[in-house]
Amino acid sequence: MTDYLRDGAEIYRRSFATIRAESDLTRLPPDVAQVAVRMIHSCGMTDLTGDLDWSPNVVRDARAALRAGAPILCDAMMVASGVTRRRLPAGNEVVCTLGEPGVAELAEKLATTRSAAALELWRDRLGGAVVAIGNAPTALFRLLEIVAETGVRPAAVLGIPVGFIGAAESKQALAESDLEHLVVHGRRGGSAMTAAAVNAIASEVD
Amino acid sequence: MTDYLRDGAEIYRRSFATIRAESDLTRLPPDVAQVAVRMIHSCGMTDLTGDLDWSPNVVRDARAALRAGAPILCDAMMVASGVTRRRLPAGNEVVCTLGEPGVAELAEKLATTRSAAALELWRDRLGGAVVAIGNAPTALFRLLEIVAETGVRPAAVLGIPVGFIGAAESKQALAESDLEHLVVHGRRGGSAMTAAAVNAIASEVD
Repeated sequence: MTDYLRDGAEIYRRSFATIRAESDLTRLPPDVAQVAVRMIHSCGMTDLTGDLDWSPNVVRDARAALRAGAPILCDAMMVASGVTRRRLPAGNEVVCTLGEPGVAELAEKLATTRSAAALELWRDRLGGAVVAIGNAPTALFRLLEIVAETGVRPAAVLGIPVGFIGAAESKQALAESDLEHLVVHGRRGGSAMTAAAVNAIASEVD
Repeated sequence: MTDYLRDGAEIYRRSFATIRAESDLTRLPPDVAQVAVRMIHSCGMTDLTGDLDWSPNVVRDARAALRAGAPILCDAMMVASGVTRRRLPAGNEVVCTLGEPGVAELAEKLATTRSAAALELWRDRLGGAVVAIGNAPTALFRLLEIVAETGVRPAAVLGIPVGFIGAAESKQALAESDLEHLVVHGRRGGSAMTAAAVNAIASEVD
């Protein structure tokens, strides 16, 4: 049997050192770089930085919102599951409404996906929230529609849905909006990367 | 606002058609190709097939085990969270022991990570199980040690941990073992890809 490193803290230390040595973080502001390192850690890909896009205050505003107790609104259970509760600064609520009763019927009535319909149940918590979309492009498109319709604004949007149909387009639309945002352009994305971004914003501890 | 496709079934259909058109699936046996398509869907990367490795009976044996009621043993809550319960053929138990009481103390006692220590709580369920490791290289290394120590054999191992320290090495060790296995060589991997592999094996429905 291969010998292997068993010290969790040392594994983290060497992982983050490798990421910092191999990733091009120079074009990122320091607070975005800290988030990017953790996102790279979650996917094993140092070239992720090339697809990253952000608004100048996204990390600052998301972090301030969390410290003030804002909820984290997630489009998928895997995103919610990946948020490390002990890193949250104010015991923040982590919300995913996808599995709530009535969402399937609502999706049928609104002629949309369940992921998009689930956002209708966010409405009373959306103002000032941190939104973390790591799966469904339709959820991100619907978020932008709700903001446009209502004028209610989240503190920040981590828009990192994955896939082949609508993912790139939904992230482009978010990047062109005036919302504070962090996106990974293109097809890549997903729940692990998105949860990693939340975890990095929640606490600056590696 | 950009118009976008809202029909969930049509989004799936077009996504899978895009993946089949753009991925090189020719070197994969048909049952592995079906699993690969769903894994690609979870990460947005059509070049994933280049890193895939498998033993000839892994999909057949994992599928048979699930139909016979085998549990799915996951190293991380995100993997367990990503398994779509309605796809499971026998209401199979989805197990993640990482958060169980005593695991942190056990890790300290055994001088290893919590992810590896959590496998000690799998021992009575490991024979014939489907193992899904999507996060921690140390969990995959420990699994191989337990199999070597006890002779107890899971039906199949989906070994897809992610990262910079030990991930590639642990997957190489699994690929060189005589266990039925599916791996993604290199640094890439993760809970979404791993849950997608479980979901594809559990049901052949797109």
